[in-house]
Amino acid sequence: MNTVPDSPAVPDSLTALAARLRGTLSTDPDVIAAYSTDESVHPGSGDALAVVRAGCVEDVALTMQFARARGIPVVPQGARSGLSGGACAEHGCILLSVASMSRILDIDEANMTVTVEPGIINKDLKDALRPHGLAYPPDPGSVAISSIGGNIATNAGGMCCVKYGVTGEYVRELTVVLADGTVTRLGHRTVKGVAGFDLVSLFTGSEGTLGIIVQAVLKVVALGPDPLTALATFPAVGGAVDTVASYMSTGANPSMLEMMDGLTIALLSEIGDFGFAPDPDADSDVTDAAVGAVLIMQSDSVTAADDTRAFAEVAEAHGAVDVAFADNPADSELLVAARRSVQIANERYAATHGGGQMIDDVCVPRSRLADFCAGVEAIRDDTRTTVALVAHAGDGNVHPSVFYDLSDAASVAAGTDAFDRIMRLGLELGGTITGEHGVGALKASWLPQELDEANRRLHRRIKDAVDPTAILNPGKMLEAL
Amino acid sequence: MNTVPDSPAVPDSLTALAARLRGTLSTDPDVIAAYSTDESVHPGSGDALAVVRAGCVEDVALTMQFARARGIPVVPQGARSGLSGGACAEHGCILLSVASMSRILDIDEANMTVTVEPGIINKDLKDALRPHGLAYPPDPGSVAISSIGGNIATNAGGMCCVKYGVTGEYVRELTVVLADGTVTRLGHRTVKGVAGFDLVSLFTGSEGTLGIIVQAVLKVVALGPDPLTALATFPAVGGAVDTVASYMSTGANPSMLEMMDGLTIALLSEIGDFGFAPDPDADSDVTDAAVGAVLIMQSDSVTAADDTRAFAEVAEAHGAVDVAFADNPADSELLVAARRSVQIANERYAATHGGGQMIDDVCVPRSRLADFCAGVEAIRDDTRTTVALVAHAGDGNVHPSVFYDLSDAASVAAGTDAFDRIMRLGLELGGTITGEHGVGALKASWLPQELDEANRRLHRRIKDAVDPTAILNPGKMLEAL
Repeated sequence: MNTVPDSPAVPDSLTALAARLRGTLSTDPDVIAAYSTDESVHPGSGDALAVVRAGCVEDVALTMQFARARGIPVVPQGARSGLSGGACAEHGCILLSVASMSRILDIDEANMTVTVEPGIINKDLKDALRPHGLAYPPDPGSVAISSIGGNIATNAGGMCCVKYGVTGEYVRELTVVLADGTVTRLGHRTVKGVAGFDLVSLFTGSEGTLGIIVQAVLKVVALGPDPLTALATFPAVGGAVDTVASYMSTGANPSMLEMMDGLTIALLSEIGDFGFAPDPDADSDVTDAAVGAVLIMQSDSVTAADDTRAFAEVAEAHGAVDVAFADNPADSELLVAARRSVQIANERYAATHGGGQMIDDVCVPRSRLADFCAGVEAIRDDTRTTVALVAHAGDGNVHPSVFYDLSDAASVAAGTDAFDRIMRLGLELGGTITGEHGVGALKASWLPQELDEANRRLHRRIKDAVDPTAILNPGKMLEAL
Repeated sequence: MNTVPDSPAVPDSLTALAARLRGTLSTDPDVIAAYSTDESVHPGSGDALAVVRAGCVEDVALTMQFARARGIPVVPQGARSGLSGGACAEHGCILLSVASMSRILDIDEANMTVTVEPGIINKDLKDALRPHGLAYPPDPGSVAISSIGGNIATNAGGMCCVKYGVTGEYVRELTVVLADGTVTRLGHRTVKGVAGFDLVSLFTGSEGTLGIIVQAVLKVVALGPDPLTALATFPAVGGAVDTVASYMSTGANPSMLEMMDGLTIALLSEIGDFGFAPDPDADSDVTDAAVGAVLIMQSDSVTAADDTRAFAEVAEAHGAVDVAFADNPADSELLVAARRSVQIANERYAATHGGGQMIDDVCVPRSRLADFCAGVEAIRDDTRTTVALVAHAGDGNVHPSVFYDLSDAASVAAGTDAFDRIMRLGLELGGTITGEHGVGALKASWLPQELDEANRRLHRRIKDAVDPTAILNPGKMLEAL
């Protein structure tokens, strides 16, 4: 254990808590600063009191008992890779990290489940399962850096959702520390179970506002064959989204169906050669990209070769100028590498263009994808912002990245306006403000727009029932309800 | 609209309610009696005040406003095909049936969703989707008589769960009438969505204790090819359950994997020739069945022929004495017909052996199936009861039917004892008291055995938060928490 630094500013009670932990408690301002933000643009809402790095379930329980007794807000944290500010500091809070609780406790091949602590990184779990011939499908873009606990807390999605569904579909049983420090087990390890309310689903995606996930039993599946890949290039976004609608309406079951727009391709081409053959005469103005849109499709079924060909036919019928195929894992990975590098490319662009990037996460009915993309274009033009689109197109889930100049108030205002109008557009098209990133702090003011009055009341009442003193992750998700 | 009969016993207020409904309200004792029970053995807990057959959402809201103002309990009802007494009358209640709200409001092929009223029968929905090339997979045994609203309220399972999952995995958006008559919309029509708590999952499986489902948007899938079928016959249950464990651990993905024990086969053979070739010398004592156990496996994938052969090899390695195959829909349906007829055969046996039958619904980890079946055998011997087993074996979900003589108090006691001990055995093996039938009235006293103290408290608090005057389906599910 690690006690707090000997400082007169540290209340004796924190020192006493630190002495009881297997993990560590720090009040060092540098440590607090390091733990006060996540991968979103949200700066946090003030200074935290301390960072607790829990070493075990008991540490989490002790910290919650401590906080509850004193009315101290607690912000649960995993890998802090979230994009909505859900793990950012709240003034006077304890930042309670479970990142170092990262063991795999059991791999049960007979029942095809795995029991893990919350801090394990998604990719580490995947890697550990592979030798057993097992796979844990959910693959958020942050797969290499995000933790399973955070994936559950946000009900994270990813590229495979179009076939394999979201995180919540893999969560069987959760062990949770409640606001008063009580430890409880929710759900069932069995394939099926309907004894009582589905509290596992209630806590999944609750973004740390109802309890802290300290253990999870997850469903895993048999490791499938490597996917085959097709990459179709279009002169414009329209042909790509029409291809998505047509292809999916054939009853297709791709394991990936991603879209990138021309600006995204151009930004990618600035960080590496992904084979998109940009116009050699183009200047550095990225809007002159030679490629209007790209679709990347994968199939991991036994009919994958047929599937990629069928996809190519639909793409060509909708004006694809080129379809490339990969028939082995290495080539597949090359085609997908561009998609996996989007956030790096976007961050690099932002860094050289004023530093501001906000990522929307609207999901619309698949049939409205074309309207949504056209609407985003109109918003972009109207707000005179730069907006790049990537989409889990098969799910209708689009991530428009809005870029702006942090040093220019007008640019920040325009960027924020575009970010908001994109959410409104999503709602108008029958969609949601967040398909997979969560509400967090960034979209808390928008949640009331999506939920009707009785639904908002249900949220408030359930929150009050489960966390009556409202110490769990205040200022996030439910704040404006 | 239909007013109540002119009777001095009918309060004026009920007459006034009746006058406002598009549907009907009846206080006729015969009608009340007809609506007071479901397909379970539970007799209900007293006389209802009235039966409301709602004709529209507004009828449900008006009835809830009426009941809430007067503190009258309300028992929501669909097709009343439940096996746990969840729809049985409570003394002084209004029985609120949504069975006649049974329209399909929209089939959205582009987004692969269907919008329905709650009263539509599962099979009617399936039939309506087929011409569109779409399928709604969940297939509880009651598929031909149970309603979608009831399927959602119990999060119903079925034979296809082993591949396609349970009802909850298909529910996108619910319109619900709350205890105070407010109408709210929960969830999202989009493929993904994480804006707020997953209240759709909270209400799914809540057995009418949180609200009344009046509309649902369901995910549908592309209609797949007809399945191929294999039926393996074993000398005893042991070989069958070992086959399940071995076959599933190969990463197999059958669309059905059902087990029936020897007694079930014998009872089936008494109602028809399902091709099980019972020993011609056997007398009418059903325990002399010639077949010890049967597994029925289906695959609807493109590799179905290979799948059925692979299954047969595993079955033969575990002592199967015969494996029959069906390579066309008609023959497949013949092989499955026996499984679909189990409840008819069981009811016939019960009718001629004292009338008592209680159906357990334990789900255990698949690896514990053998222990569970052996344990049930021991309970059967110890309690000197008759117990027949059928199982959604691929899911570890077993339905032991306990038979007893209603006219013999000792037999009833022994049957109840066996029913209870089977649930205890399930819990001891890491399972749940109910995999798919729900808690209802029959297992309400058992729910506290499965949930830890904090989990029970969460249930009570959430129920209080959502239905503060506790008028929704009292006496069921949560009663003993």
